[in-house]
Amino acid sequence: MTERIVIALDAMGGDHAPDMVIKGANIALQRFPQVDFLLFGQPAKIEPLLARYPKVAQRAQIRATEDVVTSEAKPSIALRTGRRSSMRLALDAVASGEAHCAVSAGNTGALMAMAKFALRMLPGIDRPAIASFFPTRRGESVMLDLGANVECDADNLVQFALMGDVFARTVLGLVRPTVGLLNVGSEDLKGHDTVRAAAARLRGGLSPIAFHGFIEGDDIAAGTVDVVVTDGFTGNVAIKTAEGTARLFSEFLRASFAHTLLAKIGYLFARGALRRLKERLDPRAYNGAVFLGLAGIAVKSHGGADELGFANAIGVAVDLKVNGFLEKIRDELARLNALQAPPQTAAL
Amino acid sequence: MTERIVIALDAMGGDHAPDMVIKGANIALQRFPQVDFLLFGQPAKIEPLLARYPKVAQRAQIRATEDVVTSEAKPSIALRTGRRSSMRLALDAVASGEAHCAVSAGNTGALMAMAKFALRMLPGIDRPAIASFFPTRRGESVMLDLGANVECDADNLVQFALMGDVFARTVLGLVRPTVGLLNVGSEDLKGHDTVRAAAARLRGGLSPIAFHGFIEGDDIAAGTVDVVVTDGFTGNVAIKTAEGTARLFSEFLRASFAHTLLAKIGYLFARGALRRLKERLDPRAYNGAVFLGLAGIAVKSHGGADELGFANAIGVAVDLKVNGFLEKIRDELARLNALQAPPQTAAL
Repeated sequence: MTERIVIALDAMGGDHAPDMVIKGANIALQRFPQVDFLLFGQPAKIEPLLARYPKVAQRAQIRATEDVVTSEAKPSIALRTGRRSSMRLALDAVASGEAHCAVSAGNTGALMAMAKFALRMLPGIDRPAIASFFPTRRGESVMLDLGANVECDADNLVQFALMGDVFARTVLGLVRPTVGLLNVGSEDLKGHDTVRAAAARLRGGLSPIAFHGFIEGDDIAAGTVDVVVTDGFTGNVAIKTAEGTARLFSEFLRASFAHTLLAKIGYLFARGALRRLKERLDPRAYNGAVFLGLAGIAVKSHGGADELGFANAIGVAVDLKVNGFLEKIRDELARLNALQAPPQTAAL
Repeated sequence: MTERIVIALDAMGGDHAPDMVIKGANIALQRFPQVDFLLFGQPAKIEPLLARYPKVAQRAQIRATEDVVTSEAKPSIALRTGRRSSMRLALDAVASGEAHCAVSAGNTGALMAMAKFALRMLPGIDRPAIASFFPTRRGESVMLDLGANVECDADNLVQFALMGDVFARTVLGLVRPTVGLLNVGSEDLKGHDTVRAAAARLRGGLSPIAFHGFIEGDDIAAGTVDVVVTDGFTGNVAIKTAEGTARLFSEFLRASFAHTLLAKIGYLFARGALRRLKERLDPRAYNGAVFLGLAGIAVKSHGGADELGFANAIGVAVDLKVNGFLEKIRDELARLNALQAPPQTAAL
């Protein structure tokens, strides 16, 4: 018998909430029949939706709260004043053990602050990192940090590498993922002190990961490594730059096909192929960023996600739980700490 | 009568040198009839090429040197030992006034170190920045720094903004370019101290530029601003991430068209449109990064550029000279210094 998984959903977070949350839950139920939901939010808005999605209604409990964290709220304010918000109560359900994972499409900064407070950090991790997948020439890769920490030291980067390694093994099913550190060149002397110090430690004999070395921006889409490690400032800029470039390319492509009669005819023939291209690069398929480093599973959906995107974010949470991500990362951290502990001297 | 422009070419720099240098010069001559060349490099390799390109031969002088800076050379070593290299002598020709601009496809770090030494910095600029164009939804924009400085303070960023403004006015012909500072969010409180301090100064009343505020990674391709300002680490990662993403998209597109017979037929009809798309995004059209902040014009071509790319890099150098870039940036710096000088007290 498959183990039941309980997912706490912030029903009020995101531009299209609670609509896309309930519809996304409905899609997710078709994919993951072992899931039950706790829906945190305003009953007056949630109940009419549940009436339209009876399968979700059967498998969900509403936890009523009127408080909502707005998308403009500052993290520190949200943390102080949002104790009864749908976002916070969803995280509290994970902290108390009532739910296995929480998923929210709400304010990223507030979610991160609340998740750190409610779920606490894993021992050995100083700061959480935001990780997500993206499509590459070779398949899919993981990048972190995507914006949790605008400034990072070498310790943070080494911890991100370790967490990214376990994340890629758990969610992408890789046996020994390769890990690269994002830099301005691939030679050892390139970059600033922080990346060089982190690379020296990752290259060291004690490092349990398959460290590829430095990679450059164009290695991201090339899929040179399975895990791209960087600070939250660079990672946030890089992922958004890639999204923006892909969008520009799509627009130029559309415009090219609209330009001449011949091109329009060509479009009719190639429609299927172009649809496949679109699916291959569909950002909704890559929705669901994970807050790594917390002693609980919290997944952030894009705020503008539709139901398909939100269902994928739920899928990421399910994957992490089913594959024992938290247990694996705890084991890995313990193993690393044991390796790095000074050798014991013989007892007198 | 058009003023003659003398361009010093490092004939030995780049993966396909001196071949693409001479062929690129030939293409450039068709576009810019007012150009003469000084060709720095090994006569035994250059002369046979000139025999094949008589128009270049007519308008070029060879300056013989056997020394070449390799692509692996460390900048500090190249600076010390490369005094008779083709790269260094091309820059020296600009410093002595014999040439108006230098163009090289050689080792970026070595070229930057030599250019700083040979050409010196403009007064009021602490560090040079690498700037280049890229295609956007709205046309073209400029980004800097693309990798000259992996660490920057707020003063550097403010100076980059000023140089980028003058560069966009000179080369893109904009009257009042908008300038944005790359960050992880658009709100005032986002990012680290350095970007916030730079933004505060650029927003200040004394700032002569049209400062848009913070922008994010996806604003780069969207063309939200005419000039994107960032530190050399982030800028280098961002431009390479964009290049890599565009390349991935092209490959996926090609693969889609090769997938089915219908798609192949579609391709035949849409070929012209797809060629236009390719031209619109052709990286060769954006070849030619400029070292801003130097008291002379030095343009860096991509090391892997072909003759068309190299001709475009020569074109950037010609544009800067014809439009009086150096004079404009000197004027702007003087004006800024006058504005920022403390008010004079009345003489006794």
